[in-house]
This record gives sequence, C-alpha cells and structure tokens, in this order.
Amino acid sequence: MNKIAGWIFLFLLSTTSYADDGYRLWLKYDLIKDVAKRDDYVRSAQFIVLNGNSQILKSAADELQTGLQGLLGKSVPLIANAGNRTGGIVLTVADAPNADAQTLTSEGYKVLPKQNNIAIVSKTEKGVLYGVFALLRQIQTGQLVNNLSLTSNPKIQYRLLNHWDNTNGTIERGYAGESLWKWYELPATVDPRYRDYARANASLGINGTVVNNVNASARFLTDEYIQKVAALANVFRAYGIRVYLSVYFPAPKTIGGLKTADPLDPEVRKWWADKTKEIYTVIPDFGGFLVKANSEGEPGPQDYGRNHADGANMLANALAPYDGIVIWRAFVYKADSKADRFKAAYEEFTPLDGKFDKKVIVQVKNGPIDFQPREPVSPLFGAMPKTPLAMEFQITQEYTGFATHLVYEAPLFKECLDTDTYAKGKGSPVSKVIDGSLHGYTTTAISGVANTGSDRNWTGNPMAQANWYAFGRLAWDHTLSSEDIAHEWIKMTLTTEPKAVKTITDLMLRSREIYVNYNTPIGLSRPWSGIHFAPEPWLEKSSRPDWTAIYYHRADSIGLGFNRTATGSNALAQYRLEVQQMWNDPETCPLPYLLWYHHIPWIKKLSTGRTLWDELCTRFYTGADSVGWMQQQWAQVKPAVDPEIFADVTGRLITQHKEAIWWRDAWVLYLQQYSRQPIPAPYKKPERTLDDVKRLVDIYQLR
Amino acid sequence: MNKIAGWIFLFLLSTTSYADDGYRLWLKYDLIKDVAKRDDYVRSAQFIVLNGNSQILKSAADELQTGLQGLLGKSVPLIANAGNRTGGIVLTVADAPNADAQTLTSEGYKVLPKQNNIAIVSKTEKGVLYGVFALLRQIQTGQLVNNLSLTSNPKIQYRLLNHWDNTNGTIERGYAGESLWKWYELPATVDPRYRDYARANASLGINGTVVNNVNASARFLTDEYIQKVAALANVFRAYGIRVYLSVYFPAPKTIGGLKTADPLDPEVRKWWADKTKEIYTVIPDFGGFLVKANSEGEPGPQDYGRNHADGANMLANALAPYDGIVIWRAFVYKADSKADRFKAAYEEFTPLDGKFDKKVIVQVKNGPIDFQPREPVSPLFGAMPKTPLAMEFQITQEYTGFATHLVYEAPLFKECLDTDTYAKGKGSPVSKVIDGSLHGYTTTAISGVANTGSDRNWTGNPMAQANWYAFGRLAWDHTLSSEDIAHEWIKMTLTTEPKAVKTITDLMLRSREIYVNYNTPIGLSRPWSGIHFAPEPWLEKSSRPDWTAIYYHRADSIGLGFNRTATGSNALAQYRLEVQQMWNDPETCPLPYLLWYHHIPWIKKLSTGRTLWDELCTRFYTGADSVGWMQQQWAQVKPAVDPEIFADVTGRLITQHKEAIWWRDAWVLYLQQYSRQPIPAPYKKPERTLDDVKRLVDIYQLR
Repeated sequence: MNKIAGWIFLFLLSTTSYADDGYRLWLKYDLIKDVAKRDDYVRSAQFIVLNGNSQILKSAADELQTGLQGLLGKSVPLIANAGNRTGGIVLTVADAPNADAQTLTSEGYKVLPKQNNIAIVSKTEKGVLYGVFALLRQIQTGQLVNNLSLTSNPKIQYRLLNHWDNTNGTIERGYAGESLWKWYELPATVDPRYRDYARANASLGINGTVVNNVNASARFLTDEYIQKVAALANVFRAYGIRVYLSVYFPAPKTIGGLKTADPLDPEVRKWWADKTKEIYTVIPDFGGFLVKANSEGEPGPQDYGRNHADGANMLANALAPYDGIVIWRAFVYKADSKADRFKAAYEEFTPLDGKFDKKVIVQVKNGPIDFQPREPVSPLFGAMPKTPLAMEFQITQEYTGFATHLVYEAPLFKECLDTDTYAKGKGSPVSKVIDGSLHGYTTTAISGVANTGSDRNWTGNPMAQANWYAFGRLAWDHTLSSEDIAHEWIKMTLTTEPKAVKTITDLMLRSREIYVNYNTPIGLSRPWSGIHFAPEPWLEKSSRPDWTAIYYHRADSIGLGFNRTATGSNALAQYRLEVQQMWNDPETCPLPYLLWYHHIPWIKKLSTGRTLWDELCTRFYTGADSVGWMQQQWAQVKPAVDPEIFADVTGRLITQHKEAIWWRDAWVLYLQQYSRQPIPAPYKKPERTLDDVKRLVDIYQLR
Repeated sequence: MNKIAGWIFLFLLSTTSYADDGYRLWLKYDLIKDVAKRDDYVRSAQFIVLNGNSQILKSAADELQTGLQGLLGKSVPLIANAGNRTGGIVLTVADAPNADAQTLTSEGYKVLPKQNNIAIVSKTEKGVLYGVFALLRQIQTGQLVNNLSLTSNPKIQYRLLNHWDNTNGTIERGYAGESLWKWYELPATVDPRYRDYARANASLGINGTVVNNVNASARFLTDEYIQKVAALANVFRAYGIRVYLSVYFPAPKTIGGLKTADPLDPEVRKWWADKTKEIYTVIPDFGGFLVKANSEGEPGPQDYGRNHADGANMLANALAPYDGIVIWRAFVYKADSKADRFKAAYEEFTPLDGKFDKKVIVQVKNGPIDFQPREPVSPLFGAMPKTPLAMEFQITQEYTGFATHLVYEAPLFKECLDTDTYAKGKGSPVSKVIDGSLHGYTTTAISGVANTGSDRNWTGNPMAQANWYAFGRLAWDHTLSSEDIAHEWIKMTLTTEPKAVKTITDLMLRSREIYVNYNTPIGLSRPWSGIHFAPEPWLEKSSRPDWTAIYYHRADSIGLGFNRTATGSNALAQYRLEVQQMWNDPETCPLPYLLWYHHIPWIKKLSTGRTLWDELCTRFYTGADSVGWMQQQWAQVKPAVDPEIFADVTGRLITQHKEAIWWRDAWVLYLQQYSRQPIPAPYKKPERTLDDVKRLVDIYQLR
C-alpha cells in the first residue's frame, strides 16, 4: 500500500469494521480501542524531532508518523528541534562519544526517556529506523512507553532473506503466488509493493535480500538485468536493505564468451572483477554474491578440478575493493546409493576450514539433509572454527505442508539454535557458532528462504506471516522465545484480545510437533518425490538413489530407520563425543531422533512403554487427530479475529486435517506391509487401502 | 474486495483522494462529483424493488445497492413491493406473455420507464443481472436515466473466457501473475476474489469460463479436482457463470485404467458417460468440455485412426442427458516444412462439415496462424455452413507485448468480425457467421483467452483491463464500435474528464496499428522463438520447421513475403472468389496483408510510392517513434488520472518505447542483409549492430 492509500486505510479503521486482506502484515497500526491507553500514548507522542535528512531517517520518520496516525488516530507533527518542548519522540544519530550510544553496535538502538521525551538513539540511521519499529511494536503490543528503556543490538551482522525466484516469475518452493519481482516491467515500472516489502523486512531488522534463486540464471549478471536489480535496490536502500545476487558459476562462459570458468584462470578472474565493478557502479551498496555450486547438478569449481575455496576466494577477490561478501552454500551431496548423504557436506567442507578468504562465509542448512520437519543439527556447526558459518533456515514450507498446513516454525528454528555442539565443551550451542561468539568469527550471517509471493497477503496462508516474522526476530536476537515472538505477532496481526492471544499462541506452539507426528515422527524423513506435497514412503525409483524415499527410512521385515552408528554409515562420528553419546545408544536416544540414527525392530519396546510399531501408529493417529484440536481452538477465536482471515484459516485447517489423515493412512498402510502388526487399539484401521492412498497421490503427479 | 471492504472503500472515496491499485476494474463506483447530476440520479434511485429470492437476483440487488451507494453516496433500501411509490428501480423477471418481455431473448433485458419507476425486465434472472449492470454503466458513464429506454439481447449464446491455467499455478501465456485458482487450497478455502472475478465478468455478460489450460491436465477429471472445480462453480453460479473444463483426450487411459482412448470403443464411451454423470452430480450447471486434440503434440482421436468428429461426437454423446456442449478446437497443423501451416485447419475440418453432433461447436482462432498482431481471417469462417463455428480471440497479449506494451485489442477483434467472407455473397461478415445469422447455427459461441492473473490489478498492465472489457462487450454485441467501448471503459475506470477521455481514446485506438508497425508491418508474421517476447526474425532452427521465423517471412535476396497465390502454396484458394480477388493481386492487395500472400521484391514500388524496403523502414521507424507520441499523450492526462495508475502506465510506456526500438533495429538490421539497401532518409541507421541486438535477445533466453 502506498502512503496515501495507507493513510486512508488508517482513517477508515478508526470508524468502522472491515475485512482484512492481510496485505498490511504486522504493520497494521489499527486504532487502539482502549481510550485511556491511547491517551497515555498520545501524551508521549505529541511531536517527532528529526535531525537529518537522509533517506533512511526519512523512512523512519515516515513510518513513525504513519504508525502513530493509525494507532492513535492523530497526526503527529515532524519538527526540527525540540527546544524546551517535552512529550515528544526524538530521533538521534549519535556520535561515538555520546554516552547514550555506548554499548551499542553499529545497528543497535536505544529507546530511553530523556528530558521528558522519548529518545531513539543509534550510531547509525539504520539503527534509528530499527528503534522506531521497536517503539511502534511496544505500542502495538500494548506496552507502556513512559519510562521505557530498551537497548538492543543485533546478535548477527547479516540478516538476509533468500528468494528462490526465477526469471519467469515462478518461485522454486513458493506457495504464495508468483515472484514479487516483475522482471519484464523493471526497471521502468516500480511496483509500490516493493516499498512495503522493504518496510516489513526493516521492521524485523532484516538488512539484505538475495533476489534470485540459488539455481541461478546468468541473466542477473548482464547489464540488462543489473539495471532491473538496481531499481529494486533504489527502493530498498531507504530501508537499510542491501541487494545480493545468486550467481551462476559458469557465467564467464555463458555470457562472457570465455572458454572456461576455471576460478584460477586469469581471464576468468578478470571477468568477475570487471563484472563486480560494473555492479557496484550501478548499485554502490550491493551486498554480494550467494553461490550454489557443484550441488544438485549446478556447475562449480570442481568441474575444473578446483575446490569450493578456490571458487569462493575468486569471487572474494573480485569483491575485495568493495563492502560486499561471498556467501558460499555447503548444501552438497553426490548421487551415490552406497554413501550416506547425511555425511557429504561435512566431508567436503571440513578439510577446507581455514582456506577461505576473509570475505567468504559458508552457509549451512540447519540440518544435514534438507529442511525436514525435524532434523538433527548439521555436524558442520562447530566443526569449522576458522571459517565463518551462516545459518540457512527455510521459511517457505517446502516440507511442512505448503500454504495449507499451519506450522509455526519458531520452535524448529529455536531447537536448532539451542542445540549444543560441544565444540568448545558444554555451552557451545549452534546460536553461539553463528553469532560468532564461540569461534570469534568476524563475519556473521543468517538467511531465511523466503515464503513471500505475489498473493495479496504475501504468504498464502495468513498464519505463515508468523514464520517470516519469527525468522526476522530471531535473526536479530536468537534468545527470544518462540512464545514471546508468537505473542507479539498475534497482537500486531490478528487480535489483542487476551484469551484469543493465548488460544492462538497455544495452537501455534504445538503446531510443528503435530505436523511432525502425522508426517515424519520418531526421526523419519523425506518420504517425498519431486513436488514435496504428497506422501510417498513407497518411492523406490528416481533419477537419483538419494531422491527416493526408501533410501531414507530403510523399512524392512525387521524394523525401520537408518543406522548411522559405527555399525552403519557412522555419520554420528561427525559430531563431538558428547553429542554422539546423546544419540548413539538406541536405549537412550531421544525418540525424536531415534530413526535418524538407528534401525529399530518393529517389536522393540521404547521408552514410552510401547513397541516401535505401536508408537509410530500412536503418533500418526494422534497427530492427525490433533489437527481436529487445532480446528477447535481456531473456532474459538472467531469473535476476536477479522472475518476474512478467520474464514481463510478455517478453510486451510479443513484441508490440513484431510491431508493429515492422508499422511497417516499412507504411512501406516505402507509400513504395515513390513511390520505385519495390527494397528493398536484404540485406533481404527484406515477405511481405504494403500492403493486408494496411492491413487490420490497419483492425481497430484499428473501433468 | 468483499462486500464489507467494498463499502468502506466507497465511503472513503467520498471524502478524500486515494491511490488506486486497480483491483476494482471498471466497477469502481466512485462518488459522482457533479452534485446536480448526482441529485438527479438520487431522485430516480430512492429504493430497489426485488421480487424473488434466487441467488442471481440477490447478486443483482447487491450489486445495485453497492454501486448506488458508491456513485450516489447514499444507501438505497431494498423493498419487496413498490406499492404506489415512485422514483425507484424495479427488478422483474417477466413471464413470457408480459408485454415488456417481448422482443427479448432469454438473457436479454430492457431498462425502461414504468409508472415513474425504472423497470429492469428480463425473461430470466440472468437478464435482470445484466440489466442492472447496464443501468449502473449508464450512471457510471454519466448518461441520463430519466426516461432511459434500453433493449439489449446478446447476439451470441455462449460468451466464454478460456483460462490457459495450469495445475501448478502457472499460466501459459499469462503476464499478470499466477493463476487466480488456488488448486491446493480448494475446495475448503474459497478466495473472496473469485466472487469479484464473477462480478466483473457478469458486468459484461460473460456467462461461462473454462478454468484450465487447453493443454489439459487429466487431474481435472478426477473426483479430487471435480470437488475443487465445484467450489468455484458454487461462487460463479450466483453471477450466471457456468464452469467448463478443458479435457485431456487420453484420460480414460491415464486415470480410467483403460487400454485405449479410442472414441469408438464402447468402454471408452462408457467411461466418458460415467465421468460426465459424475461431474453433473456435483456441478448441475456444468457447461461442458473444451478440447485441444491432435494439435501441437496433444493426443486425440487421430491416434486411433479416428477423426475430429468421432472424438467430438463421443463427448457430445456423454453430454446428451445434460445441458452442456462440446467445444472442439480447430487449431491444428502438422510439422511439415513443405506444407503451408495456413492451410491446415481448413484442410482437416471442411471435409467434416455436417458430421458433428448438434452439441458440438468448433472453435476457430480468428486467423489461420496464431493470434498475430494482424492476420487475415481464418478461411474456415463461412466454409462450414453445417457446423456451428465459435470465435477464439486472444485477450492475453502473447504476441502483442505481454503486460508492458499498450495494445487496445478492440480494433483487432472488430477487424476480424467485420471482414466479409462472401460465404453467401456480399454482406456475409465473420460476425454473422459466428452469431449464427448467416447459416442458421443453433449454437453460437465466442471465447477469449483470458489475460487475468493474480496481480492485484488482474491484468498486469492497467490498460490491459480494457481488453478484457472490450472482449466481453463485443461478445455481447459485436456491433459496438471500438471507440464507444473505449469511451465506456475509460470513464468507468480512469477518468470522466472529457479532454482526458478523448486523449486516452485516441491513444488506445491508434495503439494496435502502432504495435503492428514496429512489430510486423505489411503482413509480416511470427518473428519469434518459444517465449514470444524478443525479436528473432533470424530464427532458422527449432524443434519444428514451422516454429522458426524464416518459415514465415521467406526473406531472400529478391524480396520478402510468403507466396500464397496459385504460384505458391495457393492458400488463397481456401477463400471465396471475392475474397481471393481482394488479396490475389499484389498490385491491389491492401498493404496490411501484402506479405501474408505475396513474395514482393525489395525494390518493388508500392501504392504509397515507396519501395517495399523503404516502406518497411518507414513503418518500423514511425512505429517506434509513435510510442514516443503515446508517451506524450499519456503525460497530458496526468491531472485526470489516479497517481498510482498514472505512474504505472508511464513506466510501462518507457519499456514499450525501448522495446519498440529494439524490434525496429532487429528487423531492419536483419532484413538489410537481404535487401542490401540503405536505410532511407530521414531515418538514421541504428547505432547498434545486429550482433548487439541478438545479444540482448540472448539474455532473455538464458535459463
């Protein structure tokens, strides 16, 4: 929504109810209904003082005016100097010696009482912008601002979205419409939505965006497309967001006319240096390159007998004159039915520790396989002390039900961040690896694969907005709890009615575990074919052995699960001893990870007192049933939530319930062929046959 | 926008300016600013009388209330009986003997003064709905409604949109985002936008929609997807719109488990009959099937030694118990470098005239090739007196600049409709073929390949909304002029300021000819590769000979153009003698068709006094320059048009200008290799080389 439309909407909200199309995300700025509370805020927000005239400060002041206009129903004037006035908000970029700016890192901010005004202080304009959003968030969530004193520094330096968006407008693993980026129309037509995208990200502290798919098109390195990307950068810059590009490694051949893309070839190195210079001429604050190389068929330095470090360092060299970085992905594995894909990234990357240029950061997916509903953490975290590692989370719900299933991802992100790697003994969680505090990394980064698209509400499922929000908040501060983040998001987005907030929070917090239960409980993983939608645990053939389902679950007449102990693939050996001990013994291995590491007999009795088979059935059935519980919970909040959003989520939960039963039936009917056990009471055998289930799967595979 | 949101928007519009995101299309219902005029309308719209309670009547009354609320800023009450009251609007479904209903066909309507009320009368509820939209259109375009007397009958029975939308959300030849249909979310989640889609279509009289691509997925014939389609049908029904499906001919094999899809096989026939019954059980007003068979690789009856009539009649047989039709496409051609693709449809279909079941209508693209910016009419029109022929126009701008180029298509549609086929002597235009009046067809239909997508403004380019509008209006009444339609649309959508209306009308009316001039003047055609975006007149190789560019333009050292006279492919012989005479002689053939039928020497002097080469150059250069004129025209209307829409179109015109020059340079530099003539004064040789041009084309072909 552009500014004028935004104002009107706000004006409107003060007088009447309306149907919410979800476009405004968590920046709704609806009028506060509690008059006493509103008056209290009004007293503290009588004017805004803005010193300076930069783009970002202007964005900060604009946002503050727009937000207060909506929340307080009152236009708040912008003035250049407070003089003796009190009861206003003062935005200040403070010099280093300024006492208020002490303890702040460059993008951090303070919101503090000062001379009977609210001061928002930072060393940088970006920090002031973040402070403005923090103050607005306080008001949106109904907290007092009198004597408010906040100090916040981002724990991680580069906080990025990764868009897997293609040149033709499709999004690999996108479930919310087409790409936001209209490449055919750019650079001349600049969709007003780009600005709202930037506002939403800046409100979370996200400071960079990789606009194109990691399966990259070389188009983005042509002059024609650099101009288009620059038009986006021009919009994002005012919100402190830098643009990055995924690069196609053989671009020197495909668009440069060279005979090779060997990273050690002088002509190739010159081509990249020249190209980088060209980019910075047009986009002076360009962020850098993201690279998927020698991975899933994408070309890379290994095609020329070089290694990942050779490739990354060449790009780092090209970026040397500029303030940009290389983000090199560690998502690699070879098609080998004998090998364990789990081990591949560790094997390729740990020998290169210390070999990367200081401008390179290696980006690691949270788990060793691929964004499963639950994975152990990647063994790379803690294993590369000399190489900064970035976290790659997936916000888009590739493996968690597309835009239909409600899965709140903060608990998934937190579970990974909180896992102790024991890299420097107890108290070495993943969060301390990626925030640099464990190994003293000088560069720190975290990326989320975006779930945004051209759908009016950005994310398809309105509840999936919470995942974008949670990623952004955790990228800024990984110590926030899933519950606190949910509270914030609900109050800003759905309702401030306390009982409804609690009900929705419960629903969100349980949602991921419920999904795991009906989808891949007790450490099962990857029961999919290509589209990652329908259950296919029976999948035996694919273009690669590690793209089947049986490769992962290893069901046989004895039992189920992938033996990754010393008697199996020994992937466990990639972890520190303390971690190994946690998972190594099937008797003590926590159930969520059991089948990740062990092949367990069907009739083996687990810690729950049930056999593996009975426990599996229990999870599948209670998981599917729990979606019914989710529906009941959601039904209760009807009076507190906008009717359009309520109806939308209600519809999606119906679909989720149907599909959860589909998953349950697919798994139990398929596995029963191996377990030859009855379905335990009180659960009833599915009414349909395995063939029925497969027939439904087949429908979704028809061209 | 759902109803509540709509109301709010309207309330808003009465008090302040706002930025228009284009979502409301031509149903804006902004408050009329001329107070005297508004008061005049208010006096005629003091109440609405609604007899009846059907879904469609309810939609009609809703729309009238919403529209009047917006236009007049006043809530108009709904009452059950006028009694003695005057100054209201009375909606009446009239019995056949009713004098007011005389001269009306089933979907026609009258708007007439009656007992000091405005009566909207029709034999059907659908007709009343159309009458309501007609009355609103009168008010929206500022015409008087006192003593208004309108009688309108649709000239064509089936007025359809064809969506080339795929199961994965992509749209073949879509340039406005993803598909509107969210198949993964349906049937449980029903996007409020579906209703607004239905409202927009109903406002034009469109009464059917084929929701899936003619390159059809068999998914749509499964129970799973029939339920999804039914959820759409449930929304559309209230607006008189029936749902149709494109069918995959071999579905009896792929989803039915049969060994064949031979249309004469009894099991196959039974399968289709059962499937059709299943569909009608769920969608009682299902419209029927659209079929692309034995065309561009799609399977069909010829795979079993049968012909198009065998295939179509089998489906007609399945539909026999129901009120549904088969629409069988005549878009067929074989990959044969020796043959002339132009002739293929005529050769395959004319021998089948009279062989089709009465439920079958054969759908013919307007031209013999494929939706080119200008084509002669298909020779099939007028050549199938015993077989109802439907018109297939393409609204989406596959060959006319995607969503960036401004091309108003009404003149293209009209040019085809007005062309005389001489099928029954002079005065046998295409319009009379397809409206049934020439041959007494009992079924009449017209289809437009939709340009809608999930973009907020539906069509990407705001100006492309006019093409959806124009198609719908012409489908109802092909005698309307391009100019009148443009006037209506502009006033309802952009501005009522008279000078701006005139300026925009001029711009729109000239736009198609300008596009032809820089793209494919004097009868050139199809200079594209697969994506139909960038110029590629040099294209020599493709997976099929008729998918190259040289197949069509036949440039050589002597001249340019495809000889389709008796000394060439003799395609001209497929037309009536009078038509042949119009085009047969290169000396008298109108220039727009010259190279469609003749190979003309470069140095041949044309009727303009210029040689072919000089005329070509003149067209390319003036065409590209005219986009500059379009930009100037558009710049003039700035004060009269919403700022967001103004900026959007301004941006697209910049892109169009750049690409028009690209087209110009591509053609002149390429053809100059054959003509070996200088570029005539006053035009300047392009600054770039043919290699430069090709390099830019290559960029848009990179994966």
